[in-house]
Amino acid sequence: MNRKILASGNLQIQRFFNLDTRAYEEGALSSKVKELLGLVASLVLRCDDCITYHVICCVEEAVSDAEFFEAFNVSLVVGGSITIPHVRRAVERLEECRKLNKPHLSKRT
Amino acid sequence: MNRKILASGNLQIQRFFNLDTRAYEEGALSSKVKELLGLVASLVLRCDDCITYHVICCVEEAVSDAEFFEAFNVSLVVGGSITIPHVRRAVERLEECRKLNKPHLSKRT
Amino acid sequence: MNRKILASGNLQIQRFFNLDTRAYEEGALSSKVKELLGLVASLVLRCDDCITYHVICCVEEAVSDAEFFEAFNVSLVVGGSITIPHVRRAVERLEECRKLNKPHLSKRT
Amino acid sequence: MNRKILASGNLQIQRFFNLDTRAYEEGALSSKVKELLGLVASLVLRCDDCITYHVICCVEEAVSDAEFFEAFNVSLVVGGSITIPHVRRAVERLEECRKLNKPHLSKRT
Amino acid sequence: MNRKILASGNLQIQRFFNLDTRAYEEGALSSKVKELLGLVASLVLRCDDCITYHVICCVEEAVSDAEFFEAFNVSLVVGGSITIPHVRRAVERLEECRKLNKPHLSKRT
Amino acid sequence: MNRKILASGNLQIQRFFNLDTRAYEEGALSSKVKELLGLVASLVLRCDDCITYHVICCVEEAVSDAEFFEAFNVSLVVGGSITIPHVRRAVERLEECRKLNKPHLSKRT
Repeated sequence: MNRKILASGNLQIQRFFNLDTRAYEEGALSSKVKELLGLVASLVLRCDDCITYHVICCVEEAVSDAEFFEAFNVSLVVGGSITIPHVRRAVERLEECRKLNKPHLSKRT
Repeated sequence: MNRKILASGNLQIQRFFNLDTRAYEEGALSSKVKELLGLVASLVLRCDDCITYHVICCVEEAVSDAEFFEAFNVSLVVGGSITIPHVRRAVERLEECRKLNKPHLSKRT
Repeated sequence: MNRKILASGNLQIQRFFNLDTRAYEEGALSSKVKELLGLVASLVLRCDDCITYHVICCVEEAVSDAEFFEAFNVSLVVGGSITIPHVRRAVERLEECRKLNKPHLSKRT
Repeated sequence: MNRKILASGNLQIQRFFNLDTRAYEEGALSSKVKELLGLVASLVLRCDDCITYHVICCVEEAVSDAEFFEAFNVSLVVGGSITIPHVRRAVERLEECRKLNKPHLSKRT
Repeated sequence: MNRKILASGNLQIQRFFNLDTRAYEEGALSSKVKELLGLVASLVLRCDDCITYHVICCVEEAVSDAEFFEAFNVSLVVGGSITIPHVRRAVERLEECRKLNKPHLSKRT
Repeated sequence: MNRKILASGNLQIQRFFNLDTRAYEEGALSSKVKELLGLVASLVLRCDDCITYHVICCVEEAVSDAEFFEAFNVSLVVGGSITIPHVRRAVERLEECRKLNKPHLSKRT
């Protein structure tokens, strides 16, 4: 679907997508920390698609379960009970990622 | 003002404030990372008082200017131009903190 | 799913869930009024899972149809037309609850 | 300022303002409960002007301090720590109202 | 479902629905511009049902693809990457409308 | 203040600011329509600084009072009474712009 958006010929949308990708690249802050920032921002803004995306990226950045749940807790405290259904779905996504059973993605507490 | 809220005798509010404080304590994630999570969450939710609070905490956790601006960039990209006035005020708060000129808080790029 | 979150061993998340449950207990304000507060908050923040939860609780607290629609109206006026799809789903949930046909939950106008 | 808006000659805006006023009138739910609904909705949506307005209306509806703080607690739990600065300002407004020292508005715990 | 809401006998909700319909009627601003305003408002507030509704209305008002994508771009820039999943779904809805192949609704770049 | 942000050396933030400026340039949609889109988006997201900015730009694009109030009405209906304080401030900003009494910006109903 992103391909269709990018195929629209709207150059500015393409540039926005490029900025979005580059915001999480290694820099003064590590990619891991930036993905956690993206995850918490997505949780408090309550966007399930964005949450799924950042859970996957965080798993790839070797975020441990304990780290995930502390980030979930910050989201809950900042965003309130209204974020609970989204935290629940984040946990489901995390479980699915862990079950893919790639050794380097396996549970790290 | 928090004292007045806490003096209200509402135990659950006191417990909520306690959870709020503890969410940023050192754990699987460092206090520094957690304060950055709090800062980005406050920026995308556009709460100036919360932003001021987390800028100060981040300065105390020795977050460098380059790290701050990468966190601001993640907030801008996730939250859009609607966050610009809040990023602007975050930069003002940061400048004020840096000017207090405590050596251990001074500019770190 | 809440069980999985609670099983994560993150004590603060467990405490947050506990605060969430206790916020709606009978006190200076009745449980019925508190559930209505939770329903309207969920509607203006537009969280369907939370709306479903509070519709069920309100039905259990014997909220009448006329009371429900006045609460929906406050939500519409405060939150605007953007809440209409959520009010619509709240009405669907309410109808399902009423159809369960438990005498003590039946329609009260 | 509302007068200027109403003087604009835009009939639909006038009708919206009329709906806004009538949403809190006595009905199946009491004005007191409706004002509490308006207060909590304003708190979780974090609008200080709306909070001030509904605090005043709630005081006029004889909402007690204990009732206010339970409503604040529901707002905090649903809306998270991002609502704390707004709860703080709501408490300030409430104190100002109580100090006006009209006997029928005085503290009722 | 709207019929059920309207059948509830709550006059104020009926009046709100009426105001909602009339807000997009031809006036000093054309219906086309007003539908674009409704579309962008729905995108930055991230309500998929509202987006679908306004995409259809915009297609009926002969909004061209280039105009749609410029409105999507404004939404992206104002609302940030959190709106991307909603822009994606708006593009899907737009494609479905174009495929209905009514000559007067066909692609206009 | 924007100068300070731009002076931070963070290239991506500079690119975001550039995208923000270009989103309102004349294209398939006129600058006037795009500024109205920006105004309504700012109103429903309730950002006073953004509202002030777009009111000024709309005045420069020769938006008439009747057009302004129809855009305010769309914002009110979509965003609800929670936007009233922001509409009020938008009207104040508009009056200030009109009083600057530049003939080409003067009231056009």
